[in-house]
Amino acid sequence: MANAILEQLTTPSLLVEEARFTANIQRLYSHLTPLGVLVRPHLKTVKSVEAARRILAGGEGPATVSTLKEAEIFAAAGISDIIYAVGIAPQKLGRVLAIRRSGCDLKVVLDSVEQAQAVAEASRQAGDPIPVLIEIDCDGHRSGVAPDSSKLLDIGRALESGGAALVGVLTHAGESYEVEGPTALVEFAERERLAAVSAANTLRQGGLPCPIVSVGSTPTAHFAQNLDGVTEVRAGVFAFFDLVMAGIGVCSIDDIALSVLTRVIGHQHERGWIITDAGWMALSRDRGTAGQLIDQGYGLVCDERGCVIPDLIVTGVNQEHGVIAVRPGSDGALPDLPVGTLLRILPNHACATAAQFDRYAVIPLEGSDLKTWQRFGGW
Amino acid sequence: MANAILEQLTTPSLLVEEARFTANIQRLYSHLTPLGVLVRPHLKTVKSVEAARRILAGGEGPATVSTLKEAEIFAAAGISDIIYAVGIAPQKLGRVLAIRRSGCDLKVVLDSVEQAQAVAEASRQAGDPIPVLIEIDCDGHRSGVAPDSSKLLDIGRALESGGAALVGVLTHAGESYEVEGPTALVEFAERERLAAVSAANTLRQGGLPCPIVSVGSTPTAHFAQNLDGVTEVRAGVFAFFDLVMAGIGVCSIDDIALSVLTRVIGHQHERGWIITDAGWMALSRDRGTAGQLIDQGYGLVCDERGCVIPDLIVTGVNQEHGVIAVRPGSDGALPDLPVGTLLRILPNHACATAAQFDRYAVIPLEGSDLKTWQRFGGW
Repeated sequence: MANAILEQLTTPSLLVEEARFTANIQRLYSHLTPLGVLVRPHLKTVKSVEAARRILAGGEGPATVSTLKEAEIFAAAGISDIIYAVGIAPQKLGRVLAIRRSGCDLKVVLDSVEQAQAVAEASRQAGDPIPVLIEIDCDGHRSGVAPDSSKLLDIGRALESGGAALVGVLTHAGESYEVEGPTALVEFAERERLAAVSAANTLRQGGLPCPIVSVGSTPTAHFAQNLDGVTEVRAGVFAFFDLVMAGIGVCSIDDIALSVLTRVIGHQHERGWIITDAGWMALSRDRGTAGQLIDQGYGLVCDERGCVIPDLIVTGVNQEHGVIAVRPGSDGALPDLPVGTLLRILPNHACATAAQFDRYAVIPLEGSDLKTWQRFGGW
Repeated sequence: MANAILEQLTTPSLLVEEARFTANIQRLYSHLTPLGVLVRPHLKTVKSVEAARRILAGGEGPATVSTLKEAEIFAAAGISDIIYAVGIAPQKLGRVLAIRRSGCDLKVVLDSVEQAQAVAEASRQAGDPIPVLIEIDCDGHRSGVAPDSSKLLDIGRALESGGAALVGVLTHAGESYEVEGPTALVEFAERERLAAVSAANTLRQGGLPCPIVSVGSTPTAHFAQNLDGVTEVRAGVFAFFDLVMAGIGVCSIDDIALSVLTRVIGHQHERGWIITDAGWMALSRDRGTAGQLIDQGYGLVCDERGCVIPDLIVTGVNQEHGVIAVRPGSDGALPDLPVGTLLRILPNHACATAAQFDRYAVIPLEGSDLKTWQRFGGW
């Protein structure tokens, strides 16, 4: 990518390398399709219709979302099978029903009898049995019912007898972000599978339906070796990857498709600092590599072509200032980068960094002009 | 504020208590005006024309901004005296000149001879002497020239002889966020003043002009006792305040005017967790109180009326999930908050939390209907 093209962009800007993005998507489908499951990408990372088209099977789904705003926008774009994978608050059911009336088969997630009763009541009133997946807790990470809990059948019965539609179970191995290396990730994927399959069996043995068995996180999706009993896998950050994923061994640094374009705006030579115009407003405050073997600060620095500058990281951020320095402990020298120099910063966490921008500047697979993919935020 | 009004809002939403906001603004002006200085609020916190009107003297300025997008939007709203307080990259001078041609006296900041030469060159080419403040480093925090550096005169001469207009010096005691208590803050304010005044004197003794002597940060603005030689003070977060400011003793918790409205979406009773729909996407990843005497996690929890629930904090966040628990070490009990309950979260850092939203829902000083103030992001 010639300098002249990036020179047109305001700094900071959010860049996508389409070649890497496309290869990352192909890699996930190539791994999962032979395992006999559907891929249901999580669109919370990209939040962009143009990007979603490239990620979804056939460009149209199925899909996972983290907000009703995402559900509304992707439903309006014609994506007709969506799971809203955050525990439902009863006050949101009006919006859920409206999205369903628009022609999208939106499903919700919950983990308590009180939520099940509220969804059943709303289903009855609307004459539309809202499809529900029961959230299963496979790793103590966040929400969900233990796979062996007696609550499972209570929730299932409250749904089915109340007028909603129990359509499956869903789990997410969020703790897989905290382990490292193939052995641990293979084990985590199996743990995620077992939790979901065992919960599904409990429901079926109790006489309840459970057609969908949904698991997934980017690490477990890539390291699952056996998905017997699972019907679909969700993953979000797989299309961009980031330094956290590289740190746990899910990708290499060279797979990361997302970066923040920034310019040098000053120096503090005595302190070994280069100052840029990408602070936390552009990079986010995410410090996801802080607990990893290699702490990447607020991001790893590349030159304008995207080549990593060894051991150069963002060590500090203010709102619109980044401080770049040699990684503590390294004996590398600070390169000479005059004011105005363009750099790219690889992010710790693609979801958090992308969320700070309203568009992607896409370095295309073919041709030489940048493309723009709009993205959205909000709820 | 009756429950029924907040019930209309999507969760998460960003709330402003206008009564607190107004009192906070009055407090800053009441302190600074008798000290004989101009107040030049930093609009990077609010990023809203409606909010800016209430913060700026006479509704129109002067103002400080952190991005050229802010400068463009506030200039279009009629604010005619703005400092862009982030070191200028030469590639941004085209936009600077366009904003100046639109009728706004936009000033830029720099700290090197190479930047000064670029600004001088652009000034000459445009026939418009761009006004420049030299950034002074008063505390080793970030950018700026040491107040006793010989570079000061070199930069000043490069500007004045080259066709730009040297109009002053500017410093920001960013490190004042790291100290605590009135004695330390009073000392920090004096250190900030001395750095700026001494740099201004160096320029004047070298035969250069220095009409503007600009200092400020919310802590030092509130604790300055003597501003002799200073012409103006900048502050940003003062209008909202936040938990970081409360932690260093600049305000009380009850002064904080900004909060995130959220709903309970689940429980993990065995772990003592309440799950909400405000994760890092709503609260930001800012952990500014982590190093303070009281670590507030990702935010302090209030009931829907805004009353603090003692020792209840957000202990963990995912993208769209918050985990609320009793503060580690406290013997308080977890309150019974059913699914659907509305809560408000006070933020660690108002600038970071507000940046996650595109509008404020304002609980008004008078009347009972919520108002909306739009806000913007981007560069």
